[in-house]
This record gives sequence, structure tokens and C-alpha cells, in this order.
Amino acid sequence: MSWNRSPLAELLGIEHPIIQAPMAGASNAVLAAAVSNAGGLGGFGGTDTSPEDLRAVIRDIRRRTSKPFIVNLYVGKAEPYVAPSRSEEALMAALQPAHIALEAGDPPGSLDLLARADEQFAVAIEERVPVFSSHFGLPAPSIVDALKANGTRVISTATTVEEAIQLVAAGADAVIAQGSEAGGHRGTFSSEPERAQIGTLALVPQIADAVSVPVIAAGGIMDGRGIAAAIMLGASGVQMGTAFVTCPETGANSAYVRRLLSADAGDAGMTDAVSGRPMRVLRNRLVDLLEQNRAHRIDFPEQLSMTRNLRKAAFARNDDEFLPLWAGQGAPLARALPAASLMKSLIAETERLLGYDESAALALAAL
Amino acid sequence: MSWNRSPLAELLGIEHPIIQAPMAGASNAVLAAAVSNAGGLGGFGGTDTSPEDLRAVIRDIRRRTSKPFIVNLYVGKAEPYVAPSRSEEALMAALQPAHIALEAGDPPGSLDLLARADEQFAVAIEERVPVFSSHFGLPAPSIVDALKANGTRVISTATTVEEAIQLVAAGADAVIAQGSEAGGHRGTFSSEPERAQIGTLALVPQIADAVSVPVIAAGGIMDGRGIAAAIMLGASGVQMGTAFVTCPETGANSAYVRRLLSADAGDAGMTDAVSGRPMRVLRNRLVDLLEQNRAHRIDFPEQLSMTRNLRKAAFARNDDEFLPLWAGQGAPLARALPAASLMKSLIAETERLLGYDESAALALAAL
Repeated sequence: MSWNRSPLAELLGIEHPIIQAPMAGASNAVLAAAVSNAGGLGGFGGTDTSPEDLRAVIRDIRRRTSKPFIVNLYVGKAEPYVAPSRSEEALMAALQPAHIALEAGDPPGSLDLLARADEQFAVAIEERVPVFSSHFGLPAPSIVDALKANGTRVISTATTVEEAIQLVAAGADAVIAQGSEAGGHRGTFSSEPERAQIGTLALVPQIADAVSVPVIAAGGIMDGRGIAAAIMLGASGVQMGTAFVTCPETGANSAYVRRLLSADAGDAGMTDAVSGRPMRVLRNRLVDLLEQNRAHRIDFPEQLSMTRNLRKAAFARNDDEFLPLWAGQGAPLARALPAASLMKSLIAETERLLGYDESAALALAAL
Repeated sequence: MSWNRSPLAELLGIEHPIIQAPMAGASNAVLAAAVSNAGGLGGFGGTDTSPEDLRAVIRDIRRRTSKPFIVNLYVGKAEPYVAPSRSEEALMAALQPAHIALEAGDPPGSLDLLARADEQFAVAIEERVPVFSSHFGLPAPSIVDALKANGTRVISTATTVEEAIQLVAAGADAVIAQGSEAGGHRGTFSSEPERAQIGTLALVPQIADAVSVPVIAAGGIMDGRGIAAAIMLGASGVQMGTAFVTCPETGANSAYVRRLLSADAGDAGMTDAVSGRPMRVLRNRLVDLLEQNRAHRIDFPEQLSMTRNLRKAAFARNDDEFLPLWAGQGAPLARALPAASLMKSLIAETERLLGYDESAALALAAL
């Protein structure tokens, strides 16, 4: 079972180098603890969560598991919040009928959803989370230093070789190589978006060649075949999002889970109309509406903030048309298994493919 | 060395299940024979070649190797050639300065580059090529039947699960699962292009689950890591294009090879402005010019035909700005090795990663 003795598993203190992607909106304490208790690294995406609630979730995870877990936060942009524009009014008008249909009140004006990021980072520091990951680059050096001073492992997402090199230079303990198959937001932070949609199979070995920290493959990995492939490509472990959304412990509503379980790969399309940054989601009425109004698109995260009440109402009503259905291109391989069973299957499939073979591991280590 | 005993290697009568992509414009008899003599399947892309010259190349390959090889042809569209339009005049005007600079004569009017496809298919049948592959779907049933009656193995490219199923239903002996990383034309023939850009790591297992013929992984595979990953994903072998363009035996000019060897993954972008169908190429002045004139874009292959003289002149002058520089997202991993050395390295890397392990192969076979 030599794939477990990977530098990543050692770095994170876990048995199997499988990270459940800490997905804002689709993760929770129950899912995170189930994955960690099964020997992987469960996680929670806290970007959508108030600092108080984030603290409560972290404490809830700790009540449910003594194993390491991961918390993810988005890094805000340096530029200040842009004041409401004429585009905003047009967006509000376009979104009005959906608000009425879902009894979501009047469409709200925009706000900077990441304005509270520094308070969220403070919670992660104070609560001494075992592993911290960021999207859209690393937080400020003082935050990275404070996390690391607590023994927190700090990792972040790269979508190009250049981004990986930048993250390592800024102190990342490991790098997530996010291939274009991945669901949710592209983690792109310093490349032009159209130059940063590189498939996992091409991206992982290029990043592995460029950095000396462990590389975590992400994007399209759904089963032992994907995990074994990632190991062959030079990854030290994997991060899987879509595969865990369909677990019964999910933070997603059941309508979203049903859509995922019947999706085909082509349904998971890329759009920047929902949030202002590229993300991969299943097409639904929200995507169609915001793409039709792409001329009025405002910046990230203000664009995403325009639908905050609508998404909340959709989630609560178990609607799958007016919230983003984040999905990777591996969605058709999703299984509706409890997290512990899924982990067991993933481990068994991977070990079968890797042949439990000590000599193979030694050959790998010699490369 | 159990990965060699794959159903694909058996089907094609080759020692190692590595196919050199039969790339129109970058392959030739010397490269094809070198790869076949090294135990892989060398190939020639004949779409740009007259029926007479195609016959000569096939005979030249046979003089250089007794091993199997592959010939690829594009399938034309059912609709008749569209007569010259006002767009065509605008394109000719836009292309005029480049024609002057490269002394390529006057920009020609459009023509249907695939008008001679039936004559090309006839040559492949008459010459009893060992392996035939097509892009943009399979040729007419009568052509497939005639090829197969000769013992020719017939394979074709799928970019979605649905396309793979269609190809098998139409008689394909194996299916190439072309991931979005791949250089050159997307083989998409029945899906909307934006739904058919699925990464190799996500696409291969989905197609492997859907069809019972051998699956050939393509897109982003450059070394033993990529090959071993493809095997883990359920592929029975691989097709590699970009990796062979930089061999000294290449059909590409040396300026193109130099660009490939210094490219990064983001340089290999997708565009439909060059030919009328999506392809992955390095950005150069040809791509920029045709994207600026995208409003005048005409159909495939007429759009591609607008640059036929310009591309010929660019090739001959060793120019890398006015011919399409097909490239996959794995380009940064390209090596300028002779084909026989490259094959040797690929095989050694793959066997090291797969651990020469019989038990692993048995486990794979049992899945």
C-alpha cells in the first residue's frame, strides 16, 4: 500500500492522500468528519460563511473527528469594492422575475462578498486548523506566517506552472494542480483565464517537474482509476470535489445531487457570467439568464453577490435552477455512496490498480 | 511488460500500444516507419495530400518498414460546397499583406479541400493499409466495409461518450478518446463543440465504461507518466502527436519545431478561426489575423482553404507565423529526440512506472 507513504500523506498527517475538496456551499462538518475518519482529509469551504459560523463549523468538525481536516477560504482582490453601476440595475431587473417566482424578496444591490475575508482568516488562525487552503492565490504573508506558526499546513491552487511556482515562493507547503476538468471556480489568480484551462493529465506532470513540494491533482478524478492515474503523473495525492457532492452527508440540496447523478460530461460547462470569474457548472436557468445578460456583468465577487438571496431561496426550496450547480467533467462517474463507503471503494480501487506493489513504489521514488 | 499485452496491441499487431498520431502536415514516411520499426504504430495524415501522392507515401512507408502503420483521412461533410461569398472577399483582402510578405502570390478563392476524400479513401482501400483512422466521424459504410474486407483495422476519434458509442455502432474496431488537451483539430462530429472539450483524464474512463472495443487515450500524453496514467484510466493504448512533431524525422519545418520546444501550456489555445472547426494551436500572426476577421469566417474546410498558398509558402520559407502550429497542452514536455530514441524512452518510463508487474496486470484485467 505504498501510495499512502506519499510525501503529501506525511505532510498532512493522513492515512490516504485523498482530500475532499473544501467546497463552499456543498461541504459541511458531517461530510468533512466522515472523510477524515475514513483516513482521508475532509474539508469545509468557509467563504460563504460568517466568521462566527465558520468558528462553529470548525468546532463541530473537531467534535466529530480527532483527525486532521482542511478549511478553504477565497482570497479577495486588492482593489476596493466598485460602487453600484448601471449594469447592476440591469442585472437586478433581469433577476426580478426569478426572485418573484422563488419568493426571494427584491433583488439586492451588489456587495463585496469577500470583505470579511480577513476576519475569516483570523478565525482559521485562532482555531489552529490543521490544514488551510486558499483559492485565488495565497493570503497576505502575515496571514500565511501566522497559520504556519501554529503548525497549520498551508496549501493553495494553481492552474498553470507559473502560478505553482509563485505559490511555492510565497510559502505554500503543497500545491493543488487544478486541471480544466474541475468543477467550481477556476483557482486562476495570475494567468489570463483563457491560458489557464489546462487538462489535468497535461498540467500535473508539468507542475510536478517545476516545484519540489507535493503536488495534489484535482479535476476529473472520480474513482481509483483517476487516483492511480494522478499518482502515475507525479502527483502525491488527489483532491476530489464532485465525487463527494453526491454523498448523503453532502452540503448540497437533493435536487442538485439528482442533477449531478444524471449529468453528462458536456453538461458541465465553463462560464464567468455567474460570479465574474470562470467556473464549471451544470447549465441551468441561472446560467442561461446571466449569460444572456453578460453585457451587464460586473466584477467578481460583486456579480456573484447579486444572486445571494436568490441562491439562498433556491437552496431552501430544493430548487436546482437558480443556484450554481458546480460540477466537474467527471460528474457521470459520481456515486451516491456514504462518504465512508466511497472512501473504502476509492482506496480498494486504487490499490488494485497500483498492485500493492512495493517495487513499483521504489521505482516511482527513484524517478 | 504486461501493458503490451493489451487488446489494442493485439488488434493492431504491434509490440507497444503507442500510436504516433497521423498528423496531416507534420508526419511523413520517414517518421512513420521509424516509429513502426521501434515497435509502435507510425502514421501518416493524408488529408492534405493528393491521391497520387498518398499512394506514393504509403508505398514509401512499406519500403521502410515491414511493420503495421496507420493512415488518417478527414471525412468531408454531406452538404455541397458553398459558393464564394462577400466574407470570402473580405478574407482575401485581410490575407493580402501576408501573401505579399511571403511572396505567396494573390490570395486564392475558397475551395472544398475535402472534395477528393473519396479518391483518397479509394487509395487507402487499394493499398490495403494495415490501420486506417478517420477524423470527423467514420466514412460511408461502403468504405468502412471495403477497408475491413481487406483486413484493415478501422479506428476513429471520439470527443464525447456519445460519439464513441456512435463510432462503435458504425463498425469502429477501436476508439480514440481525444481529450481537450490534444493539439490539432478536435475530432468532434456530432456534439456541439462547447460540450466536447472534455479533459483526457475525465473522458477516457467514461468512454472505457461505455464501449467494449479498445480505447486509445489521446491529448496531453508526452512521456511514460502520461502513458501509465492512460493505462490506469482504462485505455488500452495511447496516441501521441505533439511528442513526435519535435523528432528530427518530423514533417514540420524547423521554425515550428523550435516554437514547440519553447512553448508553455497556455500558448496552445483553441480557435475555430483558422479552419472553421475548433483546433488547438500555438498563437501566431495567422491565428491573430483570422481571429480579428472572425466576423468573415466561412465554413470548414473552405475557411482553411483560404490560406492554402500562404501556408505552403510559410512552410517552404521556414516561417512560423503564417502556418498553423498545431500543439497540445503537453508541448512543454516535448523532447527533440530521434523517433527510435523517443520510443525507447517512452517504453522504459512506462515500464518503470507500471513496475513490470504481472500481478498488477492481472488485477487490471479483472476489473
